[in-house]
Amino acid sequence: MLGPNTELNRLVLDKNGTRYHQIARAIRQAVLDGRIGAESRLPSASALAAELAVSRPCVQRAYRLLCAEGFAVARPRSGTRVTQVMPPGDISAKPRSGATSRYAARLQSLPLITPIGAPASARPTFDLLYGEPLVHAETFHSWRRNLSSAALRAGTAYPPTGGYLPLRRAIANYLSRRRGLSCDASDILVVGGTQQALTLVERVLLNSGDRVVVEDPRYPLATHSLLAHGAKVTSCRIDQEGLVVSELPRARIRLTFVTPSHQFPSGVVMTLGRRLQLLQWATRTGSWILEDDYDTEFHSGDKPLPTLRTLDLAGRVIYVGSFSKTLFPSLRLGYIVCPKAIRDDLFRAKLLDDLGSATTEQAALGAFINSGRYERHLRKSLKEIASRRRAIVKGLQGLEGRHIEIGPYQAGMHFVIWFLGLGFDRLDAFIKRAKSLGLGLHPIHPYYRFPPSRPGLLIGYAGLTVGQLRTAVQLFGRCLESQAR
Amino acid sequence: MLGPNTELNRLVLDKNGTRYHQIARAIRQAVLDGRIGAESRLPSASALAAELAVSRPCVQRAYRLLCAEGFAVARPRSGTRVTQVMPPGDISAKPRSGATSRYAARLQSLPLITPIGAPASARPTFDLLYGEPLVHAETFHSWRRNLSSAALRAGTAYPPTGGYLPLRRAIANYLSRRRGLSCDASDILVVGGTQQALTLVERVLLNSGDRVVVEDPRYPLATHSLLAHGAKVTSCRIDQEGLVVSELPRARIRLTFVTPSHQFPSGVVMTLGRRLQLLQWATRTGSWILEDDYDTEFHSGDKPLPTLRTLDLAGRVIYVGSFSKTLFPSLRLGYIVCPKAIRDDLFRAKLLDDLGSATTEQAALGAFINSGRYERHLRKSLKEIASRRRAIVKGLQGLEGRHIEIGPYQAGMHFVIWFLGLGFDRLDAFIKRAKSLGLGLHPIHPYYRFPPSRPGLLIGYAGLTVGQLRTAVQLFGRCLESQAR
Repeated sequence: MLGPNTELNRLVLDKNGTRYHQIARAIRQAVLDGRIGAESRLPSASALAAELAVSRPCVQRAYRLLCAEGFAVARPRSGTRVTQVMPPGDISAKPRSGATSRYAARLQSLPLITPIGAPASARPTFDLLYGEPLVHAETFHSWRRNLSSAALRAGTAYPPTGGYLPLRRAIANYLSRRRGLSCDASDILVVGGTQQALTLVERVLLNSGDRVVVEDPRYPLATHSLLAHGAKVTSCRIDQEGLVVSELPRARIRLTFVTPSHQFPSGVVMTLGRRLQLLQWATRTGSWILEDDYDTEFHSGDKPLPTLRTLDLAGRVIYVGSFSKTLFPSLRLGYIVCPKAIRDDLFRAKLLDDLGSATTEQAALGAFINSGRYERHLRKSLKEIASRRRAIVKGLQGLEGRHIEIGPYQAGMHFVIWFLGLGFDRLDAFIKRAKSLGLGLHPIHPYYRFPPSRPGLLIGYAGLTVGQLRTAVQLFGRCLESQAR
Repeated sequence: MLGPNTELNRLVLDKNGTRYHQIARAIRQAVLDGRIGAESRLPSASALAAELAVSRPCVQRAYRLLCAEGFAVARPRSGTRVTQVMPPGDISAKPRSGATSRYAARLQSLPLITPIGAPASARPTFDLLYGEPLVHAETFHSWRRNLSSAALRAGTAYPPTGGYLPLRRAIANYLSRRRGLSCDASDILVVGGTQQALTLVERVLLNSGDRVVVEDPRYPLATHSLLAHGAKVTSCRIDQEGLVVSELPRARIRLTFVTPSHQFPSGVVMTLGRRLQLLQWATRTGSWILEDDYDTEFHSGDKPLPTLRTLDLAGRVIYVGSFSKTLFPSLRLGYIVCPKAIRDDLFRAKLLDDLGSATTEQAALGAFINSGRYERHLRKSLKEIASRRRAIVKGLQGLEGRHIEIGPYQAGMHFVIWFLGLGFDRLDAFIKRAKSLGLGLHPIHPYYRFPPSRPGLLIGYAGLTVGQLRTAVQLFGRCLESQAR
C-alpha cells in the first residue's frame, strides 16, 4: 500500500521516454485532471518505487522534477506534497471537433493523394511508373561528394528569400543561353519545387472562388492544390495540337495552368499556332498563365518550340521549372521566372511561407550548373532516355494496330497507350494479371476530369534500363495475348 | 541597306544569352507585335550580319531556329520568309495592374520585412543582433562532412510528406527522453522551419477574418504571416510572469500564438500558474494554442517548466520546434508535434505546399541526433552561451541603475535592456553614434504593437565571443557617457 494517496495506486506509466519522466508525467496528469488534490502528500520514494517496480532514485528524480516545475514542494520531515497549482476550472475539454478551416474542409473532400512516383510499399520488378526519373549513379555520387564544400560556401546564416544568388544567376544564364528565354537573376525566385511555385502563385493571384483553367487530362496535385485553395477549376480538352483553345471559356479567368512543352500526362506538344492563340485568348480574358515546363530538357525532337514565356509580350506568363525530373526528386528545388508585375508579391509570399529554401543544396546546384556538369548530365541523360524510349516504343509498335494505339512519345519520359480491344470492365483484371507477372501498369483515366471512351495506360520508362524495358514489353505482350484468348 | 524589310534596320538586340538567340528573339518580337508582316522576306544572312556586325553563321543559325519554330520558312532561291503565324488579334496588352489577390493586397500593406538575423550589407564589427546563433566551427564541419553519406541514405526518390522516418523517430525520441514530452514518430511532421509550421497551421485552422491572439511584444514574421493570411490579430500584454491571461479577450478566439519557454523578444519565462491559466482560458474560448519553442534548449535556469504541450489534456496545443537556433539557420528544418485531431489535415497541407522537405539534410540531422552528437553539441553550446551571457550581463550590470535597466536574461540567446535617461527623441542619434564606433544596436520598440514608454534595446549576444562582448560593453558605456554629458 502506498499510504495516504490511493490515487497513486492507479498510476499508469505510458512507456514514453525515460522512466522518471513517465512517473512525473503520470503524477502531473493526475494533479491536472483533479484525481490528486492540492496539498495531498505523495508517497515516500521507496514506497512508490516498490509499487512501480522501479528504483528509488528514479522516483526521487521524478519528485525533484515536479518540485522544480512547481507541482510539488518537498519539506524536511513532512515529505513531498502537491502544491495548489490549479486555479479552479477544467482544461480537459476537447477542442470542438471539425473546428478546422474551409481550406481543411476542401482538403478533406479531395481523394487521398500521394505524389507521383512516390515509393509504394510492394512494387513490381518491372514498374512502368511515371515519375521515376533516370538517375545516373555517377552524377549522383559526384553530386553528393560536392555537398560538403557547398555547405561551406552556403554558410550558416538565414537563406536569402529569393534564393542563393549564384544559383539564381546560374539559372538565368542557363535559360538565356540554352532556351533563348530572356531573363536575369533578379527575375528568378528559387522555390521548393513546382508544387511550392503553384502555392505561391495561387496566394498572390487567386481569391477563393476565382476561376482557373487546367488541361484535361491534368496533373492531379496541381489541380488538388487549386481546388484546396478554393479556386473554381474548369477543364479544357487536349487534342493532338495541345489545348483546344477554341473551347476555352469566355468568362473572366484568373489563371490558366498549362504544360505546353510536353502536356502532362497526354504527352502532346502544343503547336506554335495554339500557343499564340492561347496568348491571345489570355489577353482577351485577362488570364495569367502558369507555364509548367517540368521536363522540357528531355525533348528529342528537332522542333524546339519557343516557350509561352518567350512569346509573351505582355508579362502575363509565369514560367516554372524544376530539377526534380532532370536531377532527382529528393532534391526539392525549382524556380519561378517572375513577371515583373508580381515579382515582389511572389518574393514576399515565399518569405512568409518558409523564409527561403535551404542554402546548401542551392549552393551545390549552382556550382553543378556553372561547372558545366549539369549540361553534360543532361546530354548523357537525353541520350540514355532516347535509347530507352526507342526500346519500349519499338517493342510496343510490334503490338500496335492489333491491341493498342500509341500516343505521342517524342518528348519527355512518358507517353500514353490506348487499348483497342479491352473495355473498362476488364481493365482492373488486366492490371492485376500484369502485376502477378511482375509488371507494373498504371491506368490513365484517373488523370481525366472527363474520362476517355477507351482505357489507356500512362507509361513511364525513364526508371528502367533498355533490357528491363524489353522484358516489360514481353510481359505486356503476354498479358495481351492471354486476354485476347 | 537591308533590302525589302526596313523594319529590320531597327532590330535591337537585348544582350541576353547567345547572339543567335538575341537575333531570333528580336525578329520574333517584331513579327508578334506586327512590325514585320506575314510573308515578308527576311534580308540575306550576309546583309543582316553586316548590319548587326555579327558573323554570317550566327544569323544563319538564328534563321534556322525561326524556321524550326515555324516562324519562318526557307525556300531555295527565294530566301527566308516570315510565315502567317499570327492569327489576327493583339497579345501585347498588359495584364490588369493590381490584379492580385486579397492576400497580395494584405502583403503589400505590411511593412517591408526581412528575416531576423538576415545578413545586412554593412554590419558593424560588434553587432548585438538577435538571430545570429552560436555556431561551433567543429560541429559545422562535422555536419557538412556527413552530408555525402546522408545523401546516399536519403536516396533520390520523392521525400515522404511527413518527413524522413528516421528523423521523425529521432525527434520523437529526443523530445520524450530529454523534454518529457510524450509523443511518437507518427505525431511528428517535419517542416521547413517555424515559418512553414505556422503557414500550415493557419491554413488548417483559420478562415479569413478569424480572430487570433499574439503576445505584445511579438515575433514580427509570425504576426505578418497571420495578418497576410487574413486573420484578425489581437495583442496581449506580457508582464514579468508572461502573458497576462486575465487581459485576454473573452470573445471566441481560434488560435493563440505564444512563446512560453522564452517569450520573444522580451525574454520572460511564463510561470506555471500562467501556463495553466492560459490552458483554462483556451478551453473556455475554444482556442487552439501554437507553442513556439524556438530556443528552449538554451535555458540555463534550474526551473525546467513543463511545456504547454505537456500540460495539455485536451489535445489543443500545437507544439513547434526548430533547428535554426540550436544548429544553424541555413538549415531550414523544424517540426510540428501534431495534435491527433488535425494531424491528417496538417500532413495534407504540407503535401500541397511543397510535397515534402528535401531528404538529404533530414537524413543528416537524423543521424546527428541518433549518434548523440546533437546533444553533445547542445551541452557545449549551452556552456559557451552561458559564459557569453555572463560576460555581457556582468559588463552591463556595471552600468545598471544609472543608465539602464536589464530585463530577464536567464534563458535563450537574447535579452532586453531599457534606457533610464534617454528619450525616444535621442534614440536614433544614440544608435548612429554607436554604429560609428563599430557597435550594432537594435531598438526593441518596433516589436511592440503598443510601444513601451521608454526606449530599449534587443540584445543578441550568441554571435559574439566573450572578448568581443567585453569590447561591445565598453563601446556601449562610452556612448552612454557621451550622451549623458
